[in-house]
Amino acid sequence: MNGAESLINALATHGVDACFANPGTSEMQLVAALDKQPGIRAVLCLFEGVVTGAADGYGRMADKPALNLLHLGPGFANGMANLHNAQRAGSPILNMVGDHATDHLQHDAPLTSDIKGMATPVSRSFRVSDNATGLAQTGLDALADSLSHNGTISTFVVPADHAWTDTNETLSELPDTPQAKISDTTVSEIAAQLRSASSSCLFLGGRTLRKDALHQAGRIAAATGCRLVTETFFARQARGVGRVPTERLAYFGEAATEQLAGTDLLVLAGTKAPVSFFAYPDKPSVLAPETATQCTLVDRDSDALDALTRLADTLNAPATPEVVTDYADYPLADGTIDANELGKVIANRLPEQAIVCDEGATNGLGAFLLTANAAPHDWLTLTGGAIGQGLPLAVGAAIACPDQKVIALEADGSGLYTLQALWTMVREQLDVTVVLLNNRSYAILNIELNRVGVEQPGPTALSLLDLSNPDLEWTDIARGMGMQALKVETVAEFDQAFANAMSQKGPCLIEVML
Amino acid sequence: MNGAESLINALATHGVDACFANPGTSEMQLVAALDKQPGIRAVLCLFEGVVTGAADGYGRMADKPALNLLHLGPGFANGMANLHNAQRAGSPILNMVGDHATDHLQHDAPLTSDIKGMATPVSRSFRVSDNATGLAQTGLDALADSLSHNGTISTFVVPADHAWTDTNETLSELPDTPQAKISDTTVSEIAAQLRSASSSCLFLGGRTLRKDALHQAGRIAAATGCRLVTETFFARQARGVGRVPTERLAYFGEAATEQLAGTDLLVLAGTKAPVSFFAYPDKPSVLAPETATQCTLVDRDSDALDALTRLADTLNAPATPEVVTDYADYPLADGTIDANELGKVIANRLPEQAIVCDEGATNGLGAFLLTANAAPHDWLTLTGGAIGQGLPLAVGAAIACPDQKVIALEADGSGLYTLQALWTMVREQLDVTVVLLNNRSYAILNIELNRVGVEQPGPTALSLLDLSNPDLEWTDIARGMGMQALKVETVAEFDQAFANAMSQKGPCLIEVML
Repeated sequence: MNGAESLINALATHGVDACFANPGTSEMQLVAALDKQPGIRAVLCLFEGVVTGAADGYGRMADKPALNLLHLGPGFANGMANLHNAQRAGSPILNMVGDHATDHLQHDAPLTSDIKGMATPVSRSFRVSDNATGLAQTGLDALADSLSHNGTISTFVVPADHAWTDTNETLSELPDTPQAKISDTTVSEIAAQLRSASSSCLFLGGRTLRKDALHQAGRIAAATGCRLVTETFFARQARGVGRVPTERLAYFGEAATEQLAGTDLLVLAGTKAPVSFFAYPDKPSVLAPETATQCTLVDRDSDALDALTRLADTLNAPATPEVVTDYADYPLADGTIDANELGKVIANRLPEQAIVCDEGATNGLGAFLLTANAAPHDWLTLTGGAIGQGLPLAVGAAIACPDQKVIALEADGSGLYTLQALWTMVREQLDVTVVLLNNRSYAILNIELNRVGVEQPGPTALSLLDLSNPDLEWTDIARGMGMQALKVETVAEFDQAFANAMSQKGPCLIEVML
Repeated sequence: MNGAESLINALATHGVDACFANPGTSEMQLVAALDKQPGIRAVLCLFEGVVTGAADGYGRMADKPALNLLHLGPGFANGMANLHNAQRAGSPILNMVGDHATDHLQHDAPLTSDIKGMATPVSRSFRVSDNATGLAQTGLDALADSLSHNGTISTFVVPADHAWTDTNETLSELPDTPQAKISDTTVSEIAAQLRSASSSCLFLGGRTLRKDALHQAGRIAAATGCRLVTETFFARQARGVGRVPTERLAYFGEAATEQLAGTDLLVLAGTKAPVSFFAYPDKPSVLAPETATQCTLVDRDSDALDALTRLADTLNAPATPEVVTDYADYPLADGTIDANELGKVIANRLPEQAIVCDEGATNGLGAFLLTANAAPHDWLTLTGGAIGQGLPLAVGAAIACPDQKVIALEADGSGLYTLQALWTMVREQLDVTVVLLNNRSYAILNIELNRVGVEQPGPTALSLLDLSNPDLEWTDIARGMGMQALKVETVAEFDQAFANAMSQKGPCLIEVML
């Protein structure tokens, strides 16, 4: 047995069952070890941004990490943007990065790279194995790190010689990762504040948006009349019929400020104080009223369900909160598709327990708002603002939850960043419907150009925001990656295409012209 | 005038004439400033790996940097792998990274990122402006850094408020970047060593492979009988009829060791001592014979042409070296295409002053070998081993040299990393012919799996190296990006398609089934 085999066996023994991979020469022993380990599903991705984005989707749905197999510094670098998003999502991520053999590093061969330097900005934990014998334990320590604090990014490096050197299999152990609980004092203080506030707001993020935690938040709202407002970009929210309704904080700062106006108490749970996404000349970054009292019930790293439950109980809240009851059944308009009609179709037809991966950008908001009373589902968003997350996220969610339909609500500009994900959807026959919203523009930037004060942009500025000339034909691109694809231009066409997709299993792409 | 305008004007005044861009909200003022500056050609790329790879191609051909416009840490991160390659190529690269306004950073908004941490592993110089008034000088200092040492990677950050704040245009200056020369002692010592060696070898890389420098190397060979061997992965080599012939060091260590066997003197010029690309169990990393004397004529950072010229003169070398004289005119075989037949077609039909961007991987070697006596051309390779370089490199080379035909010799696996480059080729109507070598496999890894000692790989291992299931149809993918595309399966079909492409201007893709 070599180091690679002992490592892969130890990870499989401790629950790792999926590996998103794009290996190279320095990882060939790891590939061979995966080959001998039937407990781990190895999934080839044709670009590392797909690997890390898929791991994010998997981590959000499985609450444990997949194993990412990456090729030295450049392989890691290609996955960094989606690691940034995963870090903001609080996803458990386990990056295994192959490196040159230790003796080879001194020679500065072409692929020699500062892996630690690259990993540090997007990893809470970084480890390198000391030798072949210790490799399995390094992997398990890294696995434990990824599970700590409700999910963090953990990166470990496997020098090629540690992988190929023979070793005895030793009994490696997975360290404990206990979850931090908040104090009784915090619970009783916040209960008192909620009782005396006149216009309170529970600002929810992270793990507070899971079904059971939201149930407790709903009890608190029932007891105190506080509003339930979610962060704008959350990792995963339980929504739809039977779930506690929430408001989502608006994206643009002006709208968010207005939404929070009049609040005298803001209780933060699983997230930080709301701030604007970008800064603008003469506009504030902080969104809550200056006069509001702010306090933190539970931070992102601690046990959200426990905190909300104890607060609800302290408030003697009713056992059953108000939940969404009526299923969406929107009449559809005729003609061309806009964000609103798109949302109606999706809301009407979303299957039970669907998972929506939303990178729909400017045209995705209608679907979000209108699915509030769709069938119960989970909604996943772009947490870190690094576009190119949606399609990979859908890959990972589908691997984690093979019995649930995944809808990737994707924009043309964002989708093109990591379009290689389509190929993996086909290779693995994942049950993903890609709804590709094609407006042939970085539309948000046309808005932003005006917002930063540019009133009369010229042709160069506009050409940097425009995705036509040439037109991107997503049905051709999808077919080039082996995926069944269809273009729709009217509401009726989209309704039919989406209905068909929901009634079948397997990958397909619907290009929606907006 | 705001900071962005003063910066962009200063860069344009000092020779920056192209900008590869993928901007976001925090860069809107820079976009507006580019809009007002007709001296800089702004080129939208739909993924930052295309931005940085294009800048590498531009830098290798223009010997000055393009300006890269990148969106915070994640935008930079997406470009890192090709910056790794550019760093290995010694290309002048100028990264301009937008960041949040300085007051906004404290709030840790979703896109807040450790830009310095990300930039450091792939930047020789890193700067952040202090205020709007100093922004233009920060940009010029960064430009000077990129031009130093024969070309380095220089990254500077533009906080959004420095871009949008009004300022007076000040007369900013471009610092000098003098080129280091080697000493007379070095020249005379190496001349003496070459005279007394019995089997000497000039190991050439970096700027020594430009036409004029190679001419001087040829004179040295004529005077001393030394061999001229190039590094395996060079940034740019002048080749073909009228140029000095060289040998290229083999990729696999065993072959390279054999190639250098018997050498008693290895003179390094513009590169470091040869080492194997990867390490393997029980195989040496160092490729030159242990008994050979090694010395450095000129390092990568210093003036290569000057060093070679002075050495040739010291050796009283003849004025005219041996050069390639006979144009390729290979008879073609019938039937299916292999690496050799592919190379014959390209060698026969390569136009004068063509630029070949070679990421052809396992099937590209035939074309390299057979074009030794093609029409005079420049050959650019994958310098850092981070795949996904070839298509972007071709974009940049074509922008730098609009009157020269660019051939992107691309492999299916590598090409898929940065396929968004096809769209930019069409948008900018670049004169690029993509020869896409499709063997539906990471073929090199099948070889490597065996070389690291895995003799009987199972289905999981093989599935991680295989690009079929589903088949990638590059003609569909290219058409989806607006590009004219054709698939060929026989030598005659390829010969006809390549002849057509060489006789026309503008972008097209030929998918070659191997």
